[in-house]
Amino acid sequence: MYISKSFIPILKDNPSEAKIKSHQLMLRVGMIKQSSAGIYSWLPLGFKVMKKIEKIVREEQDKIGAQEILMPTIQSSEIWKESGRYEDYGEEMLRIKDRQDREMLYGPTNEELVTDIFRSSIKSYKSLPQLLYHIQWKFRDEIRPRFGIMRCREFYMKDAYSFDVSDEEANFSYNKFFLSYLKTFKRLDLTAIPMAAETGPIGGSLSHEFIILAETGESKIFTDKRVFELNTDDAKLEKNSLLEMRKKYEQFYSVTDEKFKKDDFENNVSEKNRLITKGIEVGHIFYFGDKYSKPMGASVDLPGGKKDFVKMGSYGIGVSRLVGAIIEAKYDEKNEVMKWPISVAPYDIAIIPMINKNDNTALDKANKIYLEFEKNNIDAIVDDTDENFSSKIKKMNLIGAPYQIIIGKHTDGDLLEFKEVGKDTQKFKLQAIIKIIYEQKVKN
Amino acid sequence: MYISKSFIPILKDNPSEAKIKSHQLMLRVGMIKQSSAGIYSWLPLGFKVMKKIEKIVREEQDKIGAQEILMPTIQSSEIWKESGRYEDYGEEMLRIKDRQDREMLYGPTNEELVTDIFRSSIKSYKSLPQLLYHIQWKFRDEIRPRFGIMRCREFYMKDAYSFDVSDEEANFSYNKFFLSYLKTFKRLDLTAIPMAAETGPIGGSLSHEFIILAETGESKIFTDKRVFELNTDDAKLEKNSLLEMRKKYEQFYSVTDEKFKKDDFENNVSEKNRLITKGIEVGHIFYFGDKYSKPMGASVDLPGGKKDFVKMGSYGIGVSRLVGAIIEAKYDEKNEVMKWPISVAPYDIAIIPMINKNDNTALDKANKIYLEFEKNNIDAIVDDTDENFSSKIKKMNLIGAPYQIIIGKHTDGDLLEFKEVGKDTQKFKLQAIIKIIYEQKVKN
Repeated sequence: MYISKSFIPILKDNPSEAKIKSHQLMLRVGMIKQSSAGIYSWLPLGFKVMKKIEKIVREEQDKIGAQEILMPTIQSSEIWKESGRYEDYGEEMLRIKDRQDREMLYGPTNEELVTDIFRSSIKSYKSLPQLLYHIQWKFRDEIRPRFGIMRCREFYMKDAYSFDVSDEEANFSYNKFFLSYLKTFKRLDLTAIPMAAETGPIGGSLSHEFIILAETGESKIFTDKRVFELNTDDAKLEKNSLLEMRKKYEQFYSVTDEKFKKDDFENNVSEKNRLITKGIEVGHIFYFGDKYSKPMGASVDLPGGKKDFVKMGSYGIGVSRLVGAIIEAKYDEKNEVMKWPISVAPYDIAIIPMINKNDNTALDKANKIYLEFEKNNIDAIVDDTDENFSSKIKKMNLIGAPYQIIIGKHTDGDLLEFKEVGKDTQKFKLQAIIKIIYEQKVKN
Repeated sequence: MYISKSFIPILKDNPSEAKIKSHQLMLRVGMIKQSSAGIYSWLPLGFKVMKKIEKIVREEQDKIGAQEILMPTIQSSEIWKESGRYEDYGEEMLRIKDRQDREMLYGPTNEELVTDIFRSSIKSYKSLPQLLYHIQWKFRDEIRPRFGIMRCREFYMKDAYSFDVSDEEANFSYNKFFLSYLKTFKRLDLTAIPMAAETGPIGGSLSHEFIILAETGESKIFTDKRVFELNTDDAKLEKNSLLEMRKKYEQFYSVTDEKFKKDDFENNVSEKNRLITKGIEVGHIFYFGDKYSKPMGASVDLPGGKKDFVKMGSYGIGVSRLVGAIIEAKYDEKNEVMKWPISVAPYDIAIIPMINKNDNTALDKANKIYLEFEKNNIDAIVDDTDENFSSKIKKMNLIGAPYQIIIGKHTDGDLLEFKEVGKDTQKFKLQAIIKIIYEQKVKN
């Protein structure tokens, strides 16, 4: 992509209405544009990042055997009356009357609708487990939307639902998602910690929030520092292996505000390991047994002829919110430098030629390099404008491609000035640069 | 995918509520499930097809230099009041009041919102042309939704918008989409004919509908048969080449009902070339100059210092509707045989082992073949259930993978019974089958 042809409306200064750094950066480099309170359009730069996050989320759902479906945004109130949540949900639910005066709503979540799909499709334990997910827009009519896409009204979410024959099997499904979430966030270069959490309006008996540390976070958390040293490298997609993995995480105290008990914290965590800080919720998983299947009559035939209500869990990841969460984790606000993880970067590399009047040497060189990258599936952005060099650098530092090539007066022969954002400039030949980027892309 | 693990709820009989064949098939093989009047959930089989169509649509938009964005589903009424369409649009617009009593609506189309994005981002002719598109859910509150996803209320659409400095440049943009649409439909193995059409509530002076022939179609069309022999093989993405291409299509009379004039038809088309039939609209493009940019104040600086309102067009493809349109074109209702074009097939091939009690030979063989396909990126579906053989064949004929392997008593040694759906069975070795499918996939 060439800056001159792109639709990347960059602002000179930080927008004053933005209070946190993700909101600032996203407006600043034209990733999003507000269309009304708490509702945003995603412009090309923001859209590219969100789509790459979505792809990773999808791949990790597929790996645990979940099947993708797509439920509509507009739901009938009927099923919510069946589950009993229609009145309970309060004003955050956007209620709508259609032209025939039927009560509809914009789905804030999909437990009811997926249960309705399940009950009309699956009749026998033989077809279980079923893991279904979808990635769809949701609406929650926040009274005070704020922080850009971090706390907005229309947001993009992956929500999955598991259906099992017994609590034990359901626990296995829960643990599959537990693993899948840790792997997803790792591919986004985020350290997300699973924390025991309250179940809130979803209900149920077991729940974890996945939280990344961030000073600007809205969740207060209490953890044992050692939990940050864990990984999922040994975990296999088998019942016992996943139980072990969850135990490994649960051995260390880590809870959100609502679950916090001072005595437990102090008895279980030695002073040097205590961490009290803030974080951003990027995922939330729930086990709620027959909370929906019972009132909605979603049962299956068991071996031996009896019937029982299916045991369900639900599993959410905020796809649009993750764009902001990654910025909160990676953006160096003071120096105005963003470095996207290469797995979700809007561009792999920025090519920054110094363009002087009547001298296109640097731009010609940039064009050649661009074509070479294109052949190698490396997605580059070229600043072909005639702005001065320092404002070009500034712009590319904000756009946040993780690598940069600078073509200026110091460029001699085949050796290019190459840098990983935030590190020193080095001189490399083009083929060596291609190799470096290719290897990073494969790894992530 | 194994049938036993899949979420493909198949009905024994044709659902009586479905009047046209796409609606019948989609309910029959569990591609969709109705959630309320004119609103559907997409189950795994339908979702896979729709995603593949979406991918092709996206690729062909990218090829003409359009940039992808994503506008929200919920819009403020303010911009619709600016353009003057808020009152005009009538009851098909789903109007919503949020908790603060603000007038919102579920977007039925996006001319206003994209103009709002443009006017706050682009100030100079130097940044033109801009082609922006998004693929998003829309809502039109049809008084009588029918024919499944062909005429529903919540539907998935690609809509693009072009912004140009002059009528001539805008015409170039229009022709880019004209070409892109013909290429898109060709990759879906559909013959879609561009027909001069009315502009309706979108407005403007120039419009084409892209229509595929189908007896169940809702559009009446009048054409010169020779238009079906045309192709876009010679067209290049250049101003003159695209003008030539459009002329080539426009030399033959082909119009929709609203544009039909008996005299013109009879004077321009010799009797043997006249075709009066029905069709399904799968795309619609419009040129409307400054219809939105003028009332909404979207202007750019021209060379020389003057300003002018930007010239706009809009370009829609019904992504969800295309799933139905392909079925209408390809489904042999009488014999209950569907054959998806391989470019959008839910699976590339079906493996159908005859499974007898206490004899897993055929299933073991099926498993091995499945693994071999997986290694070669061929997406297969295996019917591992113990249903009888003829109902397995029947099921797979409905699911519509374009190829089948039958593993039965006639299977000897390395030679497999292989067939392209609708053709005769042949005997091939596995590697030969892989080659056939691979070549078809690459070609499409």
